[in-house]
Amino acid sequence: MYTVSELADRINNAIQTLPLNREPEGLYKPISYVLSLGGKRVRPILMLLTYNMYKERIDNEVIHVALAVETYHNFTLLHDDLMDCADERRGKKTVHKVWNDNVAILSGDAMLILAYQYLSQIDDPEYFSLIFPEFSKFALEICEGQQYDMDFEERTDVHADDYLRMIKLKTSVLLAGSMKIGGILADASKDDQELLYNVGLYTGLAFQLKDDLLDVYGDPKLFGKKIGKDIISNKKTYLMIKAFEKANEKQKKELSHWISLKEFSPAEKIAAITAIYNDLSIKSVVEDKMNSFYNQALVNLEKVNIDSERKKQLILFLNQLMDREV
Amino acid sequence: MYTVSELADRINNAIQTLPLNREPEGLYKPISYVLSLGGKRVRPILMLLTYNMYKERIDNEVIHVALAVETYHNFTLLHDDLMDCADERRGKKTVHKVWNDNVAILSGDAMLILAYQYLSQIDDPEYFSLIFPEFSKFALEICEGQQYDMDFEERTDVHADDYLRMIKLKTSVLLAGSMKIGGILADASKDDQELLYNVGLYTGLAFQLKDDLLDVYGDPKLFGKKIGKDIISNKKTYLMIKAFEKANEKQKKELSHWISLKEFSPAEKIAAITAIYNDLSIKSVVEDKMNSFYNQALVNLEKVNIDSERKKQLILFLNQLMDREV
Repeated sequence: MYTVSELADRINNAIQTLPLNREPEGLYKPISYVLSLGGKRVRPILMLLTYNMYKERIDNEVIHVALAVETYHNFTLLHDDLMDCADERRGKKTVHKVWNDNVAILSGDAMLILAYQYLSQIDDPEYFSLIFPEFSKFALEICEGQQYDMDFEERTDVHADDYLRMIKLKTSVLLAGSMKIGGILADASKDDQELLYNVGLYTGLAFQLKDDLLDVYGDPKLFGKKIGKDIISNKKTYLMIKAFEKANEKQKKELSHWISLKEFSPAEKIAAITAIYNDLSIKSVVEDKMNSFYNQALVNLEKVNIDSERKKQLILFLNQLMDREV
Repeated sequence: MYTVSELADRINNAIQTLPLNREPEGLYKPISYVLSLGGKRVRPILMLLTYNMYKERIDNEVIHVALAVETYHNFTLLHDDLMDCADERRGKKTVHKVWNDNVAILSGDAMLILAYQYLSQIDDPEYFSLIFPEFSKFALEICEGQQYDMDFEERTDVHADDYLRMIKLKTSVLLAGSMKIGGILADASKDDQELLYNVGLYTGLAFQLKDDLLDVYGDPKLFGKKIGKDIISNKKTYLMIKAFEKANEKQKKELSHWISLKEFSPAEKIAAITAIYNDLSIKSVVEDKMNSFYNQALVNLEKVNIDSERKKQLILFLNQLMDREV
């Protein structure tokens, strides 16, 4: 069986050999740029680890499907960064900052089409017609998730359930779909396919809560991003929603006060809101929820009808995702 | 055999019954809006006319593929209008004007995915695996064409050949692909498929030159759009490129002068450049080129191995496209 780092190497090598050095440069250079920024390659690794539980050999056809997922994911980052006016991604300038908005729009569109092209490297029409609807399903759901996320910015009545539904669409279905597709390609049973989907779904929910936590409680030296970005931008994360739920009148007033301020010292705002989170033990509330999701992921994986020895690499990777500091 | 207007009705009815009345509204309402703006439905009609040459009955599976093409086309209009900062489309406000830029980006993305979903209504995996690569091929080529079009705005050395290559990518391949897909679905021979592709390709080139001509020589009462928009925005149309090719030094200087002006009276600029076009007989130069492309389309159609009686509706439609005043 392959290790996670071996799989990451295969994916990164495959990305490097994609024929993106072509005309018109203005279209393909930004795509090449985005794909070379790195990242953890979580989704293709999940797909390949799943596949590898069932099949020993991973041929290029499977790698291409993994590339389809990674290309699709990077397309969403490209367009999301443009919509969020984000200046940086993985410590580098975003595409609309290096080039411009139109380049970001059009290169993103082309990436989405390229993702579908990589998907069509599946030679067998039967497999293709099974995988294609899965791919399009999560692709559309992720757009829906992004729309809800944008809608939430205008709303003050976002409940925990709304938030969980949103991150399920925006984040989880892609992890779920990646694992299910890995299973389909490896001839997993229908039952296993659904279990694998759930493993990805619950992992995704836990993964996003981990992200929310890292924004506040991450180690600035390890995290690589600035701490407190979500707090500064008034993002309705699970932490913020739970804080409003648990807060007394005085704390609610203070939270609302900081959110309403147009001008403020970022450090002061982060410190004040983090202090309220601490008073309300929000960290452990969110950790409990995260662990409960992660546990559901493992329960589903447990039920997958394959020798537990063959699940080890996948479990190792899932643990890494949960323990990560970045 | 179906008439053009019967086919247009079927397409419009199918569009109206698409399940777009769903959540989140912010994502799907703009899609519904764009698709209901109307338009000539040229591409799906071409596909269905082609199909109908071979097969009498047009079932819903085929209609869905036609919808995929129309949805894809409208996605490109949505994003192109955003990139071009266009305020109107078909006499109505564009999506980024009614809503905002982010809505236009995300709804466009979702439309592209929906187009692929409609495509996957093809039940038979064999057909699907033939049609899918065709679809993705022209989809990517159209992005390339749009990129060249944007690149040309910055360039002063665009030659006629560059321009024709650009409109081939931006406009023609979609007509070509629509006809070829119609052929594939109708079990046309490989030879016929290639001929049909060429019919669409040459029709597309002629179609775009007709567009360029209408911008200058259209009847304002019939045209529906403002006359001279390309002239005002210094667009390097085939007319402009040919004018520069044929102009003497004095005329070149005058063209360059009008192009360089930051402030000008639109009516004056249109009149001045149109006068140069007239002096150089640009209208007949472009008409000759257009007719020669159209003729090549008909020559290819002539060779399609099917009774000429069955080609009549298609030829009628192609003639309409060439004779159109809108």
